Amino acid sequence: MDINRRLEDLREVMRREHLAACIFPSTDPHQSEYVADHWKSREWISGFNGSAGTAVVTLTSAALWTDSRYFIAAEEQLKGTEYQLMKLKIEGTPTIAEWLGREIMQNRHPYEDWSEVTIDGRCSSVCEVQALIADLRKENGITLRTNFDPLKLIWKDRPAIPEHPVEIYPLAYAGERTHDKIARIRQALREKHADGMLMAALDDIAWTLNLRGTDVHCNPVFVSYLLISSKSVTLYINKVKLPSDVLACLKAEDIKVEDYEQVENGLKKYFEYNILLDPNEVNYRLYEVVRNKGKMNDLQKTEIVEEESPVKRMKTVKNEREITGFKSAMLKDGIAMVKFLHWLSGYIGKPEISELTEMGIDQKLTSLRAEQPLYRDISFDTIAGYGAHGAIVHYEATPETDIPLEPKGLLLLDSGAQYLDGTTDITRTIALGPLSEEERKVYTLVLKGHIQIELCKFPSGASGTQLDILARQAMWREGLNYLHGTGHGVGTYLNVHEGPHQFRMEWKPAPLVAGMTITDEPGIYLAGKFGVRVENTLLITPYKETEFGKFLQFESLTLCPIDKAPIIRDMLLPEEIAWLNQYHQHVFDTLSPHLNEEETAWLKVACAAL
Amino acid sequence: MDINRRLEDLREVMRREHLAACIFPSTDPHQSEYVADHWKSREWISGFNGSAGTAVVTLTSAALWTDSRYFIAAEEQLKGTEYQLMKLKIEGTPTIAEWLGREIMQNRHPYEDWSEVTIDGRCSSVCEVQALIADLRKENGITLRTNFDPLKLIWKDRPAIPEHPVEIYPLAYAGERTHDKIARIRQALREKHADGMLMAALDDIAWTLNLRGTDVHCNPVFVSYLLISSKSVTLYINKVKLPSDVLACLKAEDIKVEDYEQVENGLKKYFEYNILLDPNEVNYRLYEVVRNKGKMNDLQKTEIVEEESPVKRMKTVKNEREITGFKSAMLKDGIAMVKFLHWLSGYIGKPEISELTEMGIDQKLTSLRAEQPLYRDISFDTIAGYGAHGAIVHYEATPETDIPLEPKGLLLLDSGAQYLDGTTDITRTIALGPLSEEERKVYTLVLKGHIQIELCKFPSGASGTQLDILARQAMWREGLNYLHGTGHGVGTYLNVHEGPHQFRMEWKPAPLVAGMTITDEPGIYLAGKFGVRVENTLLITPYKETEFGKFLQFESLTLCPIDKAPIIRDMLLPEEIAWLNQYHQHVFDTLSPHLNEEETAWLKVACAAL
Repeated sequence: MDINRRLEDLREVMRREHLAACIFPSTDPHQSEYVADHWKSREWISGFNGSAGTAVVTLTSAALWTDSRYFIAAEEQLKGTEYQLMKLKIEGTPTIAEWLGREIMQNRHPYEDWSEVTIDGRCSSVCEVQALIADLRKENGITLRTNFDPLKLIWKDRPAIPEHPVEIYPLAYAGERTHDKIARIRQALREKHADGMLMAALDDIAWTLNLRGTDVHCNPVFVSYLLISSKSVTLYINKVKLPSDVLACLKAEDIKVEDYEQVENGLKKYFEYNILLDPNEVNYRLYEVVRNKGKMNDLQKTEIVEEESPVKRMKTVKNEREITGFKSAMLKDGIAMVKFLHWLSGYIGKPEISELTEMGIDQKLTSLRAEQPLYRDISFDTIAGYGAHGAIVHYEATPETDIPLEPKGLLLLDSGAQYLDGTTDITRTIALGPLSEEERKVYTLVLKGHIQIELCKFPSGASGTQLDILARQAMWREGLNYLHGTGHGVGTYLNVHEGPHQFRMEWKPAPLVAGMTITDEPGIYLAGKFGVRVENTLLITPYKETEFGKFLQFESLTLCPIDKAPIIRDMLLPEEIAWLNQYHQHVFDTLSPHLNEEETAWLKVACAAL
Repeated sequence: MDINRRLEDLREVMRREHLAACIFPSTDPHQSEYVADHWKSREWISGFNGSAGTAVVTLTSAALWTDSRYFIAAEEQLKGTEYQLMKLKIEGTPTIAEWLGREIMQNRHPYEDWSEVTIDGRCSSVCEVQALIADLRKENGITLRTNFDPLKLIWKDRPAIPEHPVEIYPLAYAGERTHDKIARIRQALREKHADGMLMAALDDIAWTLNLRGTDVHCNPVFVSYLLISSKSVTLYINKVKLPSDVLACLKAEDIKVEDYEQVENGLKKYFEYNILLDPNEVNYRLYEVVRNKGKMNDLQKTEIVEEESPVKRMKTVKNEREITGFKSAMLKDGIAMVKFLHWLSGYIGKPEISELTEMGIDQKLTSLRAEQPLYRDISFDTIAGYGAHGAIVHYEATPETDIPLEPKGLLLLDSGAQYLDGTTDITRTIALGPLSEEERKVYTLVLKGHIQIELCKFPSGASGTQLDILARQAMWREGLNYLHGTGHGVGTYLNVHEGPHQFRMEWKPAPLVAGMTITDEPGIYLAGKFGVRVENTLLITPYKETEFGKFLQFESLTLCPIDKAPIIRDMLLPEEIAWLNQYHQHVFDTLSPHLNEEETAWLKVACAAL
């Protein structure tokens, strides 16, 4: 087995370097959720390819931590390796530090006293490394080395850092000039008592510069850093990626260009008093570069302002052009979805449905989307999970797992696209034929949760943590729950996951304000049986202003019928039925002018009042 | 005017000490919510007597910060003084540091360069002082002095620190021996890698030692500190307060007794490696004592573990005996409440109601409570607010504000008692005659919020911040809100406000678990018109356990009918009506055996199904 061979090679390096363990997180130097192949170290060493997970290898054992979305997938992928699966947020699961404390103590040879652990400081945020250092210290004083990448020596065919060309994102879609964005960022930095900042998040850089790229699967970003001071702006990027029109634009905006690898030097030569480094965004290596400056020479000392990057929240509040773009993208996506659902309806409840497979319907849907104007890509890997596969939260059908559909049960279909004018994200769960009572009840509970979020009115500045329970209360009364968040922001032809605002059980101190997009996607997953999720992307808009302040509401941007077949009508409140009927009327009115006669007839039935 | 005279005296001290400003918080060395008169510095210097507020005095100006509960009361009480009212959490209100930055800059005499501000470090928590130091530093480097109490020189008739006798709290009510509590605390300290702790919170000390006192109005606590190390326990208290039976008990438990003023010495002589100091509980002065130890002599250095005191959460989870006690206290309280409501019903809608005043009904209710066995005291100052007074969240009728009732509108009545077996807290809003549509609508919205919390089921460990919206969603849809929390823990014959768990809009990282008490008290306050609040005290109990974990529910401990007269029935959901009817049936069944015929007949009507 490949993985075991790689572990052997790694342990040889560890013994040479006197390392007790190596930690492999899942991110890149930019704290990306989806990373270029070059940075898939954790996947290379463990075989687990989910978007979130941490592999830890000691001289005698190995373990992989991931969250509930990936429990089933990880179990599959780790089979046959020595990795033990560690389920995050499940009672009894040790933290990485606790586990290392035990493993290193237990398995320490009497003549070996190595208690150093390594993590690549470039691929971990300041917060992560600092927390890890503190946690490890409590475990008999285990220390952490951060300047060593053990794979450098053994990952021979490691893919290069991508070099795809960057392109200009037209102002007609972006809605705000780079010049004005940088002025707003500088103003926000002054309010935080900082002279400048290092931007590392790839989507923040793309947003600021009104540029896009294709370096990362599904995310239209390009690998780079952006250093803003009170006087200058410097983009650190492999210059081969910049076509002449992009170079001209950067020049016109007075933005300097330096090589990607020069960012450390850039920080060393940054001569202002303060710099903002978002400790959740900037990697530990670069943070150390700034922190160590003062040690050499007090005159060159730069104070670090550790605060959230102001770009995060700016980017999440969409301007008029962006909102127009979102609505246009959603219209196209809705047309593609309805054409797909109409096509699928020809198979529902019929034996011929077994001609279709999960991968097949993904291809069909993607091809319908690709016919739409301004289509660029999918926005994430489609999740088409039939039956028990629907209970695997981040299931991606592969030739090994792909199964034919049957004329019964539920198909969970979570998909989205990148259009030049906006990004989409939609989940529908579709009855393929007769359903069990359990399937209908679970479906209706999820739908109730979805609608309660749609109906919610709330004071401007409320957090998603406050609202989250509206999606869960109906299912909690039945002892059901889902362990993922209820919703996330969506970028403008950018990453489909955009923060920091979210709906989730955990605390996120990010106020919801008008102009933000956010998904509404509760679900229930019964392992080995089926999964249900219903998702629209919403826009936050003003509701009313009273003596108690400004109140906000949600507007559904997604345009696609929600399957009524599984609904148990008596479980819905009158206000929930009214919302569903109004939503369906709106979907029909908006989409039908763009559909042929047959599709329109199908949509009319799909959107008929419950 | 007295206040202006005091300000003059204070400014004389300030000039002598070269102080630009003095800050007067509302608490005592123990971070108590309600404090003994000795520590009412802020009230003495400002005249404002609310439980929360901070006065700040510069050489030329004065301001008082308080929260929405006290806006109206503070406005009244500050009239005729030079204090400007600063409304917390209202847009545009500066922080204390921001205001001081402006005031000190603007009013600085050209020849004066004083930029030092003082706060009594004994009466502020570590967190507060540290945050203040950081905030002031940003305002042109204002510095903070913490070792000076400016009132020492000018508050001539300052009341002494109270010396009331301490009494034993019987095990029959406490349910757990001091010995076992201390063992649990030491175990929790070990888990936090601490050898000992300093306990400063008076209710935590009373709970740990199974002792009670009467040093603080309504709160059965006694002024003291408790120092726990791995080997010994020392109570710092004025020894005159300890009767011989208490002394004997302490001796039996091997608890040493030292003078209250000796606590600093005790910390200096604490020779273990680690000590837990809860930075939200321990005052800055004592924290400094420990921090400075190491500076003298490295051998005596003690590391500070800054974490939440483990006692906080232990105390909030009630044992079987405590729960039994609560139920017994609630039965007595319900009997008193029903006797009161029955008495009041004789006046409702009749002109004779004008014979009653807010203070009069408070006296009547208190006298009915005092007739109950094991009654000790009220648990907080009764809020009896008629009409527009009901909109003053923490209104307390005084001879100056007291008004007669009228046979119309709403009376808000928030009250509670201390019984030896438990503490109660209940709010009812009562129709005194015909109501406006607005009054009925607002009442029904509040009631809906109250019931939605009662109905809530949730995973063990959820936070009150997650649940809070259930009390607000109905009113938010109408653009209404309230700015206080929705609920707080209640002590066992201890403080009526017990944390850290709460229902509130702000984040509180305190998981809800079975055995906790918590109030459910949404409200709406229309300034100048009326106020509505409906409050029961709830117990958290197990609901069900499924593959998704343990789920919890609420059980109403409070036994008292909720006025049905103001309800607009059509605004209630069927589940809300069902809850109200079931609750009323339970109240009737439980209380009626303890009432006379007339009272029972009244209760039957009050509890009849809606």
